[in-house]
Amino acid sequence: MPELRQNPATKEWVIISTERARRPEEFGGQPCEETPEQRAKCPFCPGKENETPGEILAYRTYGSKPDTPGWWIRIVPNRYPALTPQGELTRVKAEDFFLYMNGLGEHEVIIESPEHEQTIATMEQKQVEEIFLAYRERYLTLSQDPRFEMIIIFKNHGINAGTSLRHPHSQLIATPVTPLHIRHRIEEAMRYFDDNGHCVYCVMLEKEIRAQERIVMETDNFVAFEPFASRSPFETWVLPKKHDSTFDNISPERCKELAYIMKQTLAKIYHSLNNPDFNYMIFSSPCHERNLEYYHWHIQILPRVTAVAGFELGSGIYINTVIPETAAKFLRETKVS
Amino acid sequence: MPELRQNPATKEWVIISTERARRPEEFGGQPCEETPEQRAKCPFCPGKENETPGEILAYRTYGSKPDTPGWWIRIVPNRYPALTPQGELTRVKAEDFFLYMNGLGEHEVIIESPEHEQTIATMEQKQVEEIFLAYRERYLTLSQDPRFEMIIIFKNHGINAGTSLRHPHSQLIATPVTPLHIRHRIEEAMRYFDDNGHCVYCVMLEKEIRAQERIVMETDNFVAFEPFASRSPFETWVLPKKHDSTFDNISPERCKELAYIMKQTLAKIYHSLNNPDFNYMIFSSPCHERNLEYYHWHIQILPRVTAVAGFELGSGIYINTVIPETAAKFLRETKVS
Repeated sequence: MPELRQNPATKEWVIISTERARRPEEFGGQPCEETPEQRAKCPFCPGKENETPGEILAYRTYGSKPDTPGWWIRIVPNRYPALTPQGELTRVKAEDFFLYMNGLGEHEVIIESPEHEQTIATMEQKQVEEIFLAYRERYLTLSQDPRFEMIIIFKNHGINAGTSLRHPHSQLIATPVTPLHIRHRIEEAMRYFDDNGHCVYCVMLEKEIRAQERIVMETDNFVAFEPFASRSPFETWVLPKKHDSTFDNISPERCKELAYIMKQTLAKIYHSLNNPDFNYMIFSSPCHERNLEYYHWHIQILPRVTAVAGFELGSGIYINTVIPETAAKFLRETKVS
Repeated sequence: MPELRQNPATKEWVIISTERARRPEEFGGQPCEETPEQRAKCPFCPGKENETPGEILAYRTYGSKPDTPGWWIRIVPNRYPALTPQGELTRVKAEDFFLYMNGLGEHEVIIESPEHEQTIATMEQKQVEEIFLAYRERYLTLSQDPRFEMIIIFKNHGINAGTSLRHPHSQLIATPVTPLHIRHRIEEAMRYFDDNGHCVYCVMLEKEIRAQERIVMETDNFVAFEPFASRSPFETWVLPKKHDSTFDNISPERCKELAYIMKQTLAKIYHSLNNPDFNYMIFSSPCHERNLEYYHWHIQILPRVTAVAGFELGSGIYINTVIPETAAKFLRETKVS
């Protein structure tokens, strides 16, 4: 079983999961392009349902059986899970110093389409809506589990973004702790709220909408913009305009609008930057700290065009070679259908 | 001129440096192996001294002229600097919200050897000592500059670790702010000290030396070990046994011992793991906060065998596929001459 360990000096958690070392691509030099053999062996393609653990949830045609073709969205446990859902949580402090826990959690794969070659930028709007509705559905279910503190939904697109399979998919990990990283973010937002009486993300949105220069696009209820201090060229944040700390408060209707702005933004990035590798992550409040007045859920899209090197690891400061205002103008003016 | 910007929501700093976009490898797919053409054009090889900015410091044979061959260590400004040392620091808050500064700082390259194919693991001990003495010398000089808050010395080895040139080199960046990342680390150490009356790193060392199971090697004054919560397979920390928060307090004699344990440890990693990509970073207290009783300078060596993907970016939690005790035993038992 995996284990969670905390560094006593930094308070950062890590997951020790030897199971994942079995993944075929681990430690190996990864090929730049998928080979025909890899393509033929893809475990996420229809007809290969028995090559993944049994499905947790699928959106499929009426009458089709679980773990058979007929689905358009399919959610399965990760075959090489970072955390596993069995048992109760135990926290142990060894020698009154080293804190660890059993690796309780959930690690799921959201297979975004039956079509191997698609990506959100190229899918039909309807299909993207289903992906985001599936995120919402899993989030709603898992956030009820008292053992989980945090649910992280993310996508790795391309080798530099850490993906291991080309077939379009995203992932969800539920953790039994609130990571330090998230805690720090919430703490900063809380401090701003205490000092100013407003959610700092709401103020940021107001300033960005007024300035316009970093806006990529807007819909009725969402804004996509390049943050003033973008960490990488074309980093893009998507925020709901109305204050809400908790992703799964989103209505199905709003979720479709979110899918629209995400698809449009990712299509702008795909077409104008020649399909770069990227990650996106949904940031929401911890599962059992709902409806916070000082935090604001959002999505960060981070193209992986430059490497995280020693300086970033040593300082936490990223070096960005493109001015965010320039990047925003470029994406804003990129037309997608 | 580069610019430092702070994200108002997260308080994280970034450097916006369009100059660095001119680096030839930027945005491009990087080749896995150096081509003969790249090898021939290496600007860090002897005889190419005019292809870098003029040297800041060099260890060279008596009578040889600056910016000519005859050196065995050579330090030059980075041709594509993230920060530049001209002028005074200005902090500006735009719209009472967005904080930025001019990109004042220093960005240097430490060319570690005239020999293109060497790396610390394969160099003579004497040469490695000179590298660490050069780090010390630049650190001592730059930490006197009242404009700099933090000096970060780091090495990127291999493409996955973000290097752009194969010739052995490390880098130094001096920043006019203490990065949030460092502040959080110091804060945690301070809290431990306030609660327990001891430096948390000193306690960690004591526990590690007693347990022995994560020790890679020891010298009279230094310990190399795999942290209890290693973020990646074979992550290794090197700490001085005697409490000291400030790297440049190190004596030249101790600096040679540090070079010895670093060379031995890197040689173990090089030989047993087939020369993996890695970063190392020297963590020290901010320049003008010297001799802190609660912080402890140290070096982190982070092999880059797995990618930082969406989960790590979203949660700050790393997934490590090798148990640190197993990694330590493996490195401990690796014999190097």
